[in-house]
Amino acid sequence: MSEIVKEFELSKEYLQALETAIEEKNDAFIRETMEGVNPADISALLDEVDHDFAKYVIDILDNEVGAEIIEDLEEDTRTKFLGNFSPKEVADYITEMDSDDAVDIINDLPPKTREEVISEITDPETAAHIQELMRYDEDCAGGLMAKEMIVANVNWNIVQTIEEIRRQRENVEKIYSVYVVDDKRRLLGKVSVKDILLANDNTLIKDIFDDDVIAVETYLDEEEVATIMQKYDLDVVPVVNLQGKLVGRITIDDIVDVITDQAEEDRQLMSGLSSDVEEDDSIWAILKARLPWLIIGLIGGIVGAFVIKGFEEDMENMVGLALFIPLIMATGGNVGIQSSTLVVQSLANKSVFTDTLVKRLLKMVAVAMCTGLVLGSISFLFVNLYAEAYLGVVVAIALQAVVLLASFMGTVTPLVLDKIGINPALASGPFITTANDILGITVYLLIANLLI
Amino acid sequence: MSEIVKEFELSKEYLQALETAIEEKNDAFIRETMEGVNPADISALLDEVDHDFAKYVIDILDNEVGAEIIEDLEEDTRTKFLGNFSPKEVADYITEMDSDDAVDIINDLPPKTREEVISEITDPETAAHIQELMRYDEDCAGGLMAKEMIVANVNWNIVQTIEEIRRQRENVEKIYSVYVVDDKRRLLGKVSVKDILLANDNTLIKDIFDDDVIAVETYLDEEEVATIMQKYDLDVVPVVNLQGKLVGRITIDDIVDVITDQAEEDRQLMSGLSSDVEEDDSIWAILKARLPWLIIGLIGGIVGAFVIKGFEEDMENMVGLALFIPLIMATGGNVGIQSSTLVVQSLANKSVFTDTLVKRLLKMVAVAMCTGLVLGSISFLFVNLYAEAYLGVVVAIALQAVVLLASFMGTVTPLVLDKIGINPALASGPFITTANDILGITVYLLIANLLI
Repeated sequence: MSEIVKEFELSKEYLQALETAIEEKNDAFIRETMEGVNPADISALLDEVDHDFAKYVIDILDNEVGAEIIEDLEEDTRTKFLGNFSPKEVADYITEMDSDDAVDIINDLPPKTREEVISEITDPETAAHIQELMRYDEDCAGGLMAKEMIVANVNWNIVQTIEEIRRQRENVEKIYSVYVVDDKRRLLGKVSVKDILLANDNTLIKDIFDDDVIAVETYLDEEEVATIMQKYDLDVVPVVNLQGKLVGRITIDDIVDVITDQAEEDRQLMSGLSSDVEEDDSIWAILKARLPWLIIGLIGGIVGAFVIKGFEEDMENMVGLALFIPLIMATGGNVGIQSSTLVVQSLANKSVFTDTLVKRLLKMVAVAMCTGLVLGSISFLFVNLYAEAYLGVVVAIALQAVVLLASFMGTVTPLVLDKIGINPALASGPFITTANDILGITVYLLIANLLI
Repeated sequence: MSEIVKEFELSKEYLQALETAIEEKNDAFIRETMEGVNPADISALLDEVDHDFAKYVIDILDNEVGAEIIEDLEEDTRTKFLGNFSPKEVADYITEMDSDDAVDIINDLPPKTREEVISEITDPETAAHIQELMRYDEDCAGGLMAKEMIVANVNWNIVQTIEEIRRQRENVEKIYSVYVVDDKRRLLGKVSVKDILLANDNTLIKDIFDDDVIAVETYLDEEEVATIMQKYDLDVVPVVNLQGKLVGRITIDDIVDVITDQAEEDRQLMSGLSSDVEEDDSIWAILKARLPWLIIGLIGGIVGAFVIKGFEEDMENMVGLALFIPLIMATGGNVGIQSSTLVVQSLANKSVFTDTLVKRLLKMVAVAMCTGLVLGSISFLFVNLYAEAYLGVVVAIALQAVVLLASFMGTVTPLVLDKIGINPALASGPFITTANDILGITVYLLIANLLI
């Protein structure tokens, strides 16, 4: 980063100095060292300290800075942390925030506190905005939008529009576009601040506005909002209700959070981590996130043992059969994960031109046959090096079957999960891998049994 | 999406109608049906048709619209597609684009064509911008930035600044902020268009600009740029060179692409897909991306067979030893992937307060010991159901050892990969899983050998 912003040493040394200053109630030191520092940096620091200490720091600073710091805290830190504040204090801070951020924070509070906080909000417009936004589900456009925006009537002229911008200058920190509506507040289009700046005072909005505007409806799922904003390179998108009335706007920074959260969720599902867990969480939290999946895997392993035991006779007749169990399992697992990831990816980039299910499956079979042929041939050569020739045949045929089966499972599972509304990334996770392991071993031993 | 934009039926039916229109050279139909349609939608359509057909459509449309369509095409479609254009045509289209997009496209051309295209650019400013930007590596701030922005001298007044905006109104489509520089073009701060709009004509920039601006330097890695923009909720960030001079700006839409590409790369590495492959690629492309990893897994399986063969005597002495090979392998694999994903995640959210390596490893050991204890106990109970008691002891101890080993590998591998500049997500992929499988089997059989 450049030198232009005040260089803030987010160091462990400063953290210690800060803790000492808090203990000694050295307000001057705190105020001085934090002046001009970006609130996001202060949040990162306060995420590390004791809640009482963090409250002490926030109390010292300006209300506006404090609000920004609270906004930027990590969600779990923040929730615990706000427990130390009175409803009145929380109300004062969220009044300083954009309405979307305010609602996110209120929604995380316990229901009783929520009501208390709302009743303490003194500005009637803020209270109305918050109550309106709380009606929407958090995962849809209505739950992401904020009310702060500049709206101009299509019949206004430039002077009237500038007057409106002046009136709202404190509420609307950053103006993306001015939205143009009719008398019933139905969205008609937008006009850029640049065009307002360059127009004459008595130019009418209706003569310069752009009616080519992409809007989303309140109920649209957040991931679809993300897809639209990404596809059309939008910084901000207006939100309309079913009657086409403008009710809010969504900015790209919230969408960036949606995208990164989604990527993290996918990664965790693929790895068998059941809740939003991080390396620096407590040992207990990590165990809680990891053990369920490991136990599923373990039970799968025990079922696998049963299956092998069922073929005990074959195993005794055919020395060497056991040798290739790992090879069969590993290949099935790898093929299954590859297939499901390809499907998950194409589900994420939905297009009307996606192949039909039949075409998909035919292609899957073609790829699986080629793969099985290559892997089967290689393994046949190797197996012959240190086992009987007919074992090579068994392994090669079993590989072909396992590759086909794992490809099928890997292709169909995410499609089914997606249909029933579950994140398809789960199909690349340990549950399916475990199922594939058991299937793979069964097929292998069954083929051996039939061929001997 | 709302009804406000022209509803464009991106349907298979329209695709067919379009192909017929192209064959019949029915320009009127093409022009009429595409008027007012967002170029991004036309790109999605042209991604599906033959290159010659796509060129035909683009030739019919306005140069400006054509440029936007070309920008939005998928990278591989675009590269093949531009092969049909003369250098002069390419030059005309990229002159319409923002300089960052123009450079991305030029960089994808073969070196000879690249020179020809540049020599055909008629506007000297555009040519200079492109040549300057081509100097930067694609993955750093310099490679992401564009030159189109409004820059005001700190000594100007509002009238002069508006004059500059007017002069650039065609070049700079969207004004994020006006950047403020000194006589040597060193970045001093920024001023919002809102503030310019609300100020008096003779107000001086130096009296209203905000000197609290976050900038990045040209050499900063794109992922670090993404982290900074995300942390500070920036829509745009100015780029300065080593002398602090303002050289460009990066907008959030490019960063959104960086973030999604990164997530996709991680997912592919975790699944053993070696190149940027999609479900609708050709069978050959899919095989090329999948087979290398499957063959690595296969070789791992063959090595595993060697290992088991080495313990053949034990296997014969201890009936039932083979039964639990799948259980050991699956658990080792699952534990390893969980551990590495946790580390990859915390590497992605780097913080100065991250635990030290020693603390990390101690925690890892603690979690692994608890995990091993739980899994060992469960397996001990089950194994006793259908095998000799001492086998239960062997499995339980081996599980404990394998969990510890897999946790260690899963924790250390991504850290090492990250240190040597390789994407740590690779550590959750098949290569490491294969290594873990072999290790797991070896440990299991070794423990059995020692305990019998």
